[in-house]
Amino acid sequence: MKTPAELPILMSQRSTLTKDLAISFLMQQGVENPDCLSLAAGLVDPETLPVEETLRAAQQVLATRESGIRALQYGTTPGSAQLRSELLTYFADLEKCSTESLGIDASQMILTTGSQQLLSLVCETLLDPGDICLVAGPTYFVFAGNLAGVGARTVTIPSDDQGMDPAALDHALEQIASMKELHRVKLIYAVSYYDNPSGVCLSTSRREQIVEIAKKWSREHRILVLEDAAYRELRYDGEEHPSVWSFDQERANVIYTQTFSKTFSPGIRVGFGIVPKDLVTAICERKGNEDFGSAHFNQKLIATVLRSGEYQGHLAKVRDGYRLKRDAMLAAAQKYFSDLPGVSWVHPKGGLYVWMTLPESLESGFDRPLFSQAVKHGVMYVPGELCYAGPVEDRPRSQMRLSYGVLPVDLIDEAMRRLADAVRETQSARTSNDVSS
Amino acid sequence: MKTPAELPILMSQRSTLTKDLAISFLMQQGVENPDCLSLAAGLVDPETLPVEETLRAAQQVLATRESGIRALQYGTTPGSAQLRSELLTYFADLEKCSTESLGIDASQMILTTGSQQLLSLVCETLLDPGDICLVAGPTYFVFAGNLAGVGARTVTIPSDDQGMDPAALDHALEQIASMKELHRVKLIYAVSYYDNPSGVCLSTSRREQIVEIAKKWSREHRILVLEDAAYRELRYDGEEHPSVWSFDQERANVIYTQTFSKTFSPGIRVGFGIVPKDLVTAICERKGNEDFGSAHFNQKLIATVLRSGEYQGHLAKVRDGYRLKRDAMLAAAQKYFSDLPGVSWVHPKGGLYVWMTLPESLESGFDRPLFSQAVKHGVMYVPGELCYAGPVEDRPRSQMRLSYGVLPVDLIDEAMRRLADAVRETQSARTSNDVSS
Repeated sequence: MKTPAELPILMSQRSTLTKDLAISFLMQQGVENPDCLSLAAGLVDPETLPVEETLRAAQQVLATRESGIRALQYGTTPGSAQLRSELLTYFADLEKCSTESLGIDASQMILTTGSQQLLSLVCETLLDPGDICLVAGPTYFVFAGNLAGVGARTVTIPSDDQGMDPAALDHALEQIASMKELHRVKLIYAVSYYDNPSGVCLSTSRREQIVEIAKKWSREHRILVLEDAAYRELRYDGEEHPSVWSFDQERANVIYTQTFSKTFSPGIRVGFGIVPKDLVTAICERKGNEDFGSAHFNQKLIATVLRSGEYQGHLAKVRDGYRLKRDAMLAAAQKYFSDLPGVSWVHPKGGLYVWMTLPESLESGFDRPLFSQAVKHGVMYVPGELCYAGPVEDRPRSQMRLSYGVLPVDLIDEAMRRLADAVRETQSARTSNDVSS
Repeated sequence: MKTPAELPILMSQRSTLTKDLAISFLMQQGVENPDCLSLAAGLVDPETLPVEETLRAAQQVLATRESGIRALQYGTTPGSAQLRSELLTYFADLEKCSTESLGIDASQMILTTGSQQLLSLVCETLLDPGDICLVAGPTYFVFAGNLAGVGARTVTIPSDDQGMDPAALDHALEQIASMKELHRVKLIYAVSYYDNPSGVCLSTSRREQIVEIAKKWSREHRILVLEDAAYRELRYDGEEHPSVWSFDQERANVIYTQTFSKTFSPGIRVGFGIVPKDLVTAICERKGNEDFGSAHFNQKLIATVLRSGEYQGHLAKVRDGYRLKRDAMLAAAQKYFSDLPGVSWVHPKGGLYVWMTLPESLESGFDRPLFSQAVKHGVMYVPGELCYAGPVEDRPRSQMRLSYGVLPVDLIDEAMRRLADAVRETQSARTSNDVSS
């Protein structure tokens, strides 16, 4: 007979749906291969981290006992009133309008532990098992994990160099409607600026079209667009796009989310969401159950750097730094990959990622020769197949997400050289196998 | 025909189960009655908040670029390795043993946004709708909300001045087994030190018995005890109790959770859990989906004050302050309530709450004359009926949770005087109604 300690723990069904997103495998690889240059890590550039700015903000927040006490006490579940009000001004600046003409109030602004928590809260609040979310292919793999974790079904909409294709979106909804499944469609998810992983920025006209399509197919209930604007401020060149949210005049069909993790500090971990009025209570009640409020002190730090203008100054430096690194990666891609037939890549105008497509015969997954060859050469990437929702067998297999976030310029060049070598060797090993077999 | 903006948003079933715990009603009352003295708020005493200590810790963490960068970068999902290792030492001190003899490693130590997030993660990871959690009556009302939010069934175990009654717990499990429902029992929840709301400290012998009972009824699967030790360090007098966790030699049946919100700062919002080895992955995967890690900077702040000893010095001051306030509330209870027949209260040896029982005829709910009378007199409390899980109609109606956390000593006396007046007037109004009717 088993002792109590030997008996199994029975997990919830929720828990069995939740997977670890293969990130732990990558981290493990990183630990086991400390000399590996990582084009996989989604970390931000350590050089950009605002050590002095944060210290000054902390000194200011804690300068008097009165202000210190306020910051160190519990906040409220939706977050600091001061930061929420600062964010209205900040967001109006981004939208190039007055706070009044935003047409929302501070109660619709919800502060979270990174924007990730907002994404998770939205899934928990809206999606039952079997409900449908439409996503671009490829899409943000952590969000794909959130969808799987609540048992949602995903429908992948093809995406090109302008982002998610509205015609395909409309067609997919038409098909869903014809299968009498429209009542299960709750969400359309779009990383609207410099997509993770594809680097693509949704074109302005498509932004408007996506909102129109969401409204058009809102027949018995509202279909919401979840706009993930995590990379909005990491624009290095090209057009400044209005948000998807801005095309929703009624402020009823789009949930907007953004974070200060990429542009300021992920260790401070402040994100926010702007939600339709009639979603506020449900999101806050859910957040109340999860943690009844993210760290109030951190919200005060962000409010301080926004108010003082330190944030804006810091952001300009961050952008300049990443622009150089983006350029370095594109130059290295040109240098090392342009003679490889069938290899192409996206030229991102912002964000942290270059999305590279290899010939179909060169699969990039963890269990494929290319990945081992890359690790052997001392470089790592995120296999593209991880960045799709839905059944594994339907996913493209020969893509890679290459991040220029962490490495300095010279090592970006070196990492790309190693990766090209790995691609070349894997390809010639394949060819000689083909010949010998 | 309705416009898209007029159509309803369809919420998930999860969302319809999640309630706002009546806290918003209390907060609303507070806003509408700004002169009200609050014996309801669960905030910590503003006087205890470590403004200078936090500033020194921030200065230390951000002293060099190298250490600052580490703190401001992403951490990992389970949290800072430095703090988790500090916490092993800290926890061994609490348990009065060496870190080796704890019989756990740092991987089992999981850092969360307050201990609340750990409580929520445990519910999500273990409980399906219809699963059973046994709780004391009364119990922590936020946790009761978590249980309701995942659709769990609760079984309330009577509690006395020694805490949850083990004989009643055993009997309840026997009944559940006889109904062939033992496979649905996942958890036994206990606030082991200075319970919120009852103030009671679980006796040492009962700690051991509860673990034994959990093991005894672990037949086909493991029944886990969730030990909520949020108030462990707020001990003002009386015996120092070993944790419930310490009686689980195999480290397999008890989940332990604690927080620095009460003893240091809720605005920094760092809590932790110690979980059985085979629960680590599930909890971390779930947390990965929710936020992939709480704020790393804050974890560094707590690690710094633990390492420097500032935390321990601060804690001694916090304890001294709360002891005075506890004494003030007990003295005021004696002064204003001792001549009221049928009124009794618990003398807590720690924590933040005095639990008062009124005559059964005097119901204390929001919609009862006593609550309105109290607000009219300028004082607020938490109605005891909120602090029970399960059907509202089965709950005792004439209890109050009185917190001495926020008010200074002189206002505690004044608040208790007002409350006694409200009780007296409500009672005499009732009596005259009885006479006249």
